[in-house]
Amino acid sequence: MAILVQKFGGTSVANAEKICRAAERALRAHQQGYQVVIVASARGKQTDELIADAKELNLAPPRREMDMLMASGEQQTVSLLAITLWGMGQKAISFTGQQAGFFTDDTYSKARILDIKADRVHEKLNEGYIVAVAGFQGVNEAGDITTLGRGGSDTSAVALAAVLGAERCDIYTDVDGIYTSDPRIYNKAVKIDKISYDEILEMASLGAGVMHGRSIEVGKKYDVPIYVRSSLNDNPGTLITHEVPEMEHILVSGATIQKDLTKITLIGVDHKPGNAAKIFTQLAVKRVSVNDIIQTEVSPDKANLSFTVSHADLDVARQAIANIRNMVHCQSVIVREDVAEVSIVGVGMQSHYGVAEKMFAALAEKQINIDSITTSEIRISCLVDLDQGEKALIAVCDAFELDKPAAERLA
Amino acid sequence: MAILVQKFGGTSVANAEKICRAAERALRAHQQGYQVVIVASARGKQTDELIADAKELNLAPPRREMDMLMASGEQQTVSLLAITLWGMGQKAISFTGQQAGFFTDDTYSKARILDIKADRVHEKLNEGYIVAVAGFQGVNEAGDITTLGRGGSDTSAVALAAVLGAERCDIYTDVDGIYTSDPRIYNKAVKIDKISYDEILEMASLGAGVMHGRSIEVGKKYDVPIYVRSSLNDNPGTLITHEVPEMEHILVSGATIQKDLTKITLIGVDHKPGNAAKIFTQLAVKRVSVNDIIQTEVSPDKANLSFTVSHADLDVARQAIANIRNMVHCQSVIVREDVAEVSIVGVGMQSHYGVAEKMFAALAEKQINIDSITTSEIRISCLVDLDQGEKALIAVCDAFELDKPAAERLA
Repeated sequence: MAILVQKFGGTSVANAEKICRAAERALRAHQQGYQVVIVASARGKQTDELIADAKELNLAPPRREMDMLMASGEQQTVSLLAITLWGMGQKAISFTGQQAGFFTDDTYSKARILDIKADRVHEKLNEGYIVAVAGFQGVNEAGDITTLGRGGSDTSAVALAAVLGAERCDIYTDVDGIYTSDPRIYNKAVKIDKISYDEILEMASLGAGVMHGRSIEVGKKYDVPIYVRSSLNDNPGTLITHEVPEMEHILVSGATIQKDLTKITLIGVDHKPGNAAKIFTQLAVKRVSVNDIIQTEVSPDKANLSFTVSHADLDVARQAIANIRNMVHCQSVIVREDVAEVSIVGVGMQSHYGVAEKMFAALAEKQINIDSITTSEIRISCLVDLDQGEKALIAVCDAFELDKPAAERLA
Repeated sequence: MAILVQKFGGTSVANAEKICRAAERALRAHQQGYQVVIVASARGKQTDELIADAKELNLAPPRREMDMLMASGEQQTVSLLAITLWGMGQKAISFTGQQAGFFTDDTYSKARILDIKADRVHEKLNEGYIVAVAGFQGVNEAGDITTLGRGGSDTSAVALAAVLGAERCDIYTDVDGIYTSDPRIYNKAVKIDKISYDEILEMASLGAGVMHGRSIEVGKKYDVPIYVRSSLNDNPGTLITHEVPEMEHILVSGATIQKDLTKITLIGVDHKPGNAAKIFTQLAVKRVSVNDIIQTEVSPDKANLSFTVSHADLDVARQAIANIRNMVHCQSVIVREDVAEVSIVGVGMQSHYGVAEKMFAALAEKQINIDSITTSEIRISCLVDLDQGEKALIAVCDAFELDKPAAERLA
């Protein structure tokens, strides 16, 4: 019997009516012949409320205790879902992360799943139960409750789907699926029917924000089809799957913008082996996440080195740079906080020429200056002035016809 | 190092201010040199709210899922307590029932503690932590969460105190201690300084209601001194302990009234061996809790049999009696719902004469008719008309000087 995992986020279980609707979806899938596992988040704003309760008592609450506190939220949702299903005449059982067999490392608030021992989940599915599993949480070797951090319930759902050999993992959310671009900026954006794990990973890390990167990585690793869809209607959503031949015909699947960026440039760094390593080690020690690294040689013994960090990391990055300047000679440091990064993503880029030129031409036509360019196999990113960022995104979307379904675009 | 267990009920942790106050009490005891374990209930009305949430979704929610839901409440309280203590500069750790080692049977919503493996609690105490344990809950052999039912957090606290070999178990509540009688009826009632487990057990089962009987039984079995006191002030409370010689001088420690009673009388039951067993087996099968059984012979082959049940059990009791009448011949059944039971309790009764006479005289003086009388070693109970119940209680209290501290009463 095929297994289906259905994940419901906080907004999709925010009140009794929504919990009923989620339970009905599970029941319908069960009646269609699936063995159904629900993975759920805490109800509505509950996580925020619990954080507020804790901060009222201690502005710097310890992480172990916060995980203990937070995990109670999902526990409530899944027991309420099971209670609802029993009321509908359907056998159901709820499990905490621990009961569902989620074993994690010790990193409270950002734990990593080490193993899922899903024997009890399997057993109950085989007995005809719908199983409701608390997302976002697990247990470490000592038996203490851990949480997986941001997007953790998505990761729980996809990882459990992988271990169970599920046919698919449905992610119910408050949007209809994943769009070719941010509809708040590019209002002609259309829903993507199918997209590859790699493309979503590039888009997620660039701030498109529908699904958390970790869950996609797990989906990719274990080849779990992930279907992002709305909990409010039955519209088709977006299927995230491995790369299929038809995707190669799509030049660009989506375009994103990231505004929360600072560009840091070290001018006139001594061009010696090991200097780059020293610099990035210092940043890593301070846990600064660095992107878009560009090194250019300005003379035989001097280079300029630039990279971007998020605004949140800027203060720590400045400290790291102070340390760097004690070890590596550099003439000056330029910090630009008013930049935005516009990116296009598409697996089709790998087999098509002229994609970059088309992007640059679209920007040039709108008089947008490109500060710097970085690329991956399936992505091209341009750093532009922050105040030109949205205009740049729209220009790029229009150039690659992201207002049309993929099949209707010109190749 | 002596161990102190402090139990805080829902009203004593209802909001941030009260959680702080509870944490301060624990910290103070810790600074006085105790190893401190806090056992806490869910915050304020939270348990009621969770029940309401569940009933909105299913009027007959399954017990396993209700236990899963309820247990989240205490989990929140103890993590918030630990968070607060860290904010005060004190190492603290919270444990669910499972983490604290509470193993129970499978009876969801009314589970019994089978064993407490308190190794982790001991370990953390020895490392200088204050340990906050979720009351009311445990885990069964399958790893499912169970709750202990009414008064469960008291039982958790006293049982844990027993296993840890604690010096004392402090029960913080919203009253100052245990009174000689119900102050809402007998406004001259005074606080009892010290009382025996047996007396409290008689008073609890008779509806005095400060502490649940199960927790007292555990305290008695393992000889854990239980100190009932207010979380609102530092007034001395009531110490519940084993019988000490000084208690023998106290004729009557307290007087109680129970109004929620129905008296059932089977008239003219065939007086044959085995008939009583048949009757009470039928009631037990229906889980009717029966008290005050009196059998009187009315002729060589007929007897009248009466007993009391609580109003809540009356419907089920009537069904049981219908079954009984198919098996045992009886002439008629009389049901009286308008009765109250007034009782006096005191270990001193065992060694004093004239206690019963004094009680009956006090009632007679007020023209109160006694329907029936039952006694135990340390208790005398009189069934009276419901509308004379409060008057009867006051008369008895006055007769035994329950408006005075024990030391000031005439022997």
